Amino acid sequence: MSTSVERDSGQIITVLESLRQAVAKGDSDMARELAARLVEEDALSLLLHLPERELSRLFDIVGDEALAEVLSRLDERDAADILEHMSAAQAADILEEIDPDDATDIIAEVEPEFHETILVAMEPEDAAELRELMAYPPESAGGIMTPAFVAISPEMRADQAVAALRRVAEEAETVNYVYVLDEQEHLLGVLSLHRLVLTRPDSPVRELMFDDPITVAVEADQEVAARLLTERDLLALPVVDSEGRLVGIITADDVHDVLEQEATEDIERLGGSAPLSEPYLRASPILLFRKRIVWLLALFMAQFVTLAIYDHYEGLAAEEALLSLFVPILIGTGGNVGSQTVTTVIRAMAVGEARPRHFLRIVGKEAMTALALGAVMGTLMFVRGAVKGGSDFGLTVGLTVLVLVMWAAVVGAILPIALSKLRIDPAVVSAPFISSFVDGTGLVIYFTLAGALLHLNAT
Amino acid sequence: MSTSVERDSGQIITVLESLRQAVAKGDSDMARELAARLVEEDALSLLLHLPERELSRLFDIVGDEALAEVLSRLDERDAADILEHMSAAQAADILEEIDPDDATDIIAEVEPEFHETILVAMEPEDAAELRELMAYPPESAGGIMTPAFVAISPEMRADQAVAALRRVAEEAETVNYVYVLDEQEHLLGVLSLHRLVLTRPDSPVRELMFDDPITVAVEADQEVAARLLTERDLLALPVVDSEGRLVGIITADDVHDVLEQEATEDIERLGGSAPLSEPYLRASPILLFRKRIVWLLALFMAQFVTLAIYDHYEGLAAEEALLSLFVPILIGTGGNVGSQTVTTVIRAMAVGEARPRHFLRIVGKEAMTALALGAVMGTLMFVRGAVKGGSDFGLTVGLTVLVLVMWAAVVGAILPIALSKLRIDPAVVSAPFISSFVDGTGLVIYFTLAGALLHLNAT
Repeated sequence: MSTSVERDSGQIITVLESLRQAVAKGDSDMARELAARLVEEDALSLLLHLPERELSRLFDIVGDEALAEVLSRLDERDAADILEHMSAAQAADILEEIDPDDATDIIAEVEPEFHETILVAMEPEDAAELRELMAYPPESAGGIMTPAFVAISPEMRADQAVAALRRVAEEAETVNYVYVLDEQEHLLGVLSLHRLVLTRPDSPVRELMFDDPITVAVEADQEVAARLLTERDLLALPVVDSEGRLVGIITADDVHDVLEQEATEDIERLGGSAPLSEPYLRASPILLFRKRIVWLLALFMAQFVTLAIYDHYEGLAAEEALLSLFVPILIGTGGNVGSQTVTTVIRAMAVGEARPRHFLRIVGKEAMTALALGAVMGTLMFVRGAVKGGSDFGLTVGLTVLVLVMWAAVVGAILPIALSKLRIDPAVVSAPFISSFVDGTGLVIYFTLAGALLHLNAT
Repeated sequence: MSTSVERDSGQIITVLESLRQAVAKGDSDMARELAARLVEEDALSLLLHLPERELSRLFDIVGDEALAEVLSRLDERDAADILEHMSAAQAADILEEIDPDDATDIIAEVEPEFHETILVAMEPEDAAELRELMAYPPESAGGIMTPAFVAISPEMRADQAVAALRRVAEEAETVNYVYVLDEQEHLLGVLSLHRLVLTRPDSPVRELMFDDPITVAVEADQEVAARLLTERDLLALPVVDSEGRLVGIITADDVHDVLEQEATEDIERLGGSAPLSEPYLRASPILLFRKRIVWLLALFMAQFVTLAIYDHYEGLAAEEALLSLFVPILIGTGGNVGSQTVTTVIRAMAVGEARPRHFLRIVGKEAMTALALGAVMGTLMFVRGAVKGGSDFGLTVGLTVLVLVMWAAVVGAILPIALSKLRIDPAVVSAPFISSFVDGTGLVIYFTLAGALLHLNAT
């Protein structure tokens, strides 16, 4: 075990050395490539096994810029772990090299006692920037924006703007857009680098700029900002405060993380648990337990109702022993169709394809689909039931499947839309939720049909 | 109904008129905003109710550029519908204004007989470009790339490169990067506009460029290309053929659609159906039926096995009538835990967080979580069972839940990883799959425990 760690450390140090050289040569493509490779291999967490002094010497050799490149790609909690293995001065130097929006996420994860020490060791200006960004909720537009934008005055000419750009390009996260601000920092317009370069040098900025740019409010949800940016195919989105002052920009690379995170949360909810707040591999069994037990208990309550319903029909079940035998297959099929419907409808709503105003179209489509599915499954179930218990019994289970499949599909289509109209996130209707719901109601359908078709009269 | 269509048409025509003005003024932000609004409102499909001549006159007034702006944001099938309502000349003019990668997707959806007529009516150069792009599979890197990149020679100086850029900027999809090619179109290096503008005008391109750019092969899967671009935070990714010639670039805006589509497919699979090949609202009940019936039938087969298992234990069930009563709640709880585990693990694998080499860590984590979940649920079930049938019976159902929850979680963790090692997409292990699996195996566990703990001996 320990020899394998040592061997791996050797390889990682070689990659770190290449990274340092790439950074020194200014070859940022190569540096990205190497940094990405280190991240994929969980390389740095392996290094944390090294003795602290050796590690600190190694970090010195690799250099701040190269380490910044790697840390900004890691999950913020992993990056914080590594910073905690450094001196405050070293950690501060590295954070200064990281884009402020990413640096904020990392420092927020550092142990509270180490936290302030690092901020104090940073350049006062950089530290102030981080403190400001940390004030915004992490899931808001303010929480993912960077203040490193390029601002110019409307009185400039194009060539002056390019000269201004040249001075700040090092610090800015993107120079694809420059923002035109008045003296109170109100956003007057946006100008793409593209347009700035390809125009006549003496054109006034005021005439070149777009004076009605798309913006997002600093307190808006990060998902709103992400969708706005992707739907409008923008490379960066300006973030403004309530007075219309430009406080930051959100760049396309941050948006990808937001959308991936939102899709992950939807998937976890659809599977029947509360979204994990951490990457899966970092999540402890205690966290997993907490995220799952809430829904399990809620579903358990629903299943207690199912139990009571089943108990209620005990007389019928006793009169015809075959009835119990078919319970799992009947409610299982209903649950499967419900799960298919619910996941499809919820995803269509999440990506903005299906909207509450499509209510009738969605329910109609699902009902017709379920009719066809129910007919096929019902026929098969009829055959299986008839073989086991005669044609009347076959008819009972066949008809139950048909009704149950339609019921599951219609409920699975209506519930998410209804919840969304009530402004509740439709993703709470998970696959397990709909299965549990169909279990109880399915038994009522089954025993009611059985009572009628098989002429049973016990209750 | 018809009056509402007419009223809505009136509003839409007003928005189209504003769009025309925005395009005429060169205000692309406003044009994007208006185009996006039209798309959100399903506006153009409403217009298709207008008489054909009126519609054609309307399109003439709005202008090719504005319509191109709208069509390129629509789903390609909707865009194709609208093109089919136009004359070939009009359709050709509009397609020429759309980025070639998007235009290719649209023309691929146009009815075959109209298809060739449009291509013939286009400028020969544009038509040739589309024909070339249509040759690549739609889900490959070649299928989502655009040939509209800016190429320069390594012999140029920075100022000459900027001048070259200025000439082609209109046509290029992005000018954020320029690509340095030799005479045989081999990709030698990449240069960002950023670097080009902010350097001394007489610097040679050969020295400024990055000479080892990240590229993707033209036949690579679109998801590989999308992940490469987002993981490296690039704005565009060069696509090369087997000889290293640059054939196109993939831009960040295309990647978002790819990743959203892949997440949707994963969600649909997790819900237990084959991925829809169309947007949900366009999918007919027949398509929905086809995508769902395959898995339903497969699961039905599994449930037949469950039925046979249940039947096998008929004697035990008859001896203790309470046993049947608890079947739905027991297998339901197992299925719920299985669904929670499977969705979490599969998502963690899809986003690259969990990998096959984390096998032991994942299974260990899930087993420990399940032990805690099983202990809580088992205790509750013990109480419920004891109330109904005495402490021995309570012990039977309580212990069954504990074992079943652990079994479901461990299977739910192992199966996706094992499949992925076998190079099968782990998303085939859907929530319904794991529920159905737990149904059958759960009955074996239940009746075995019951036989032992309740001293039953019928079989």
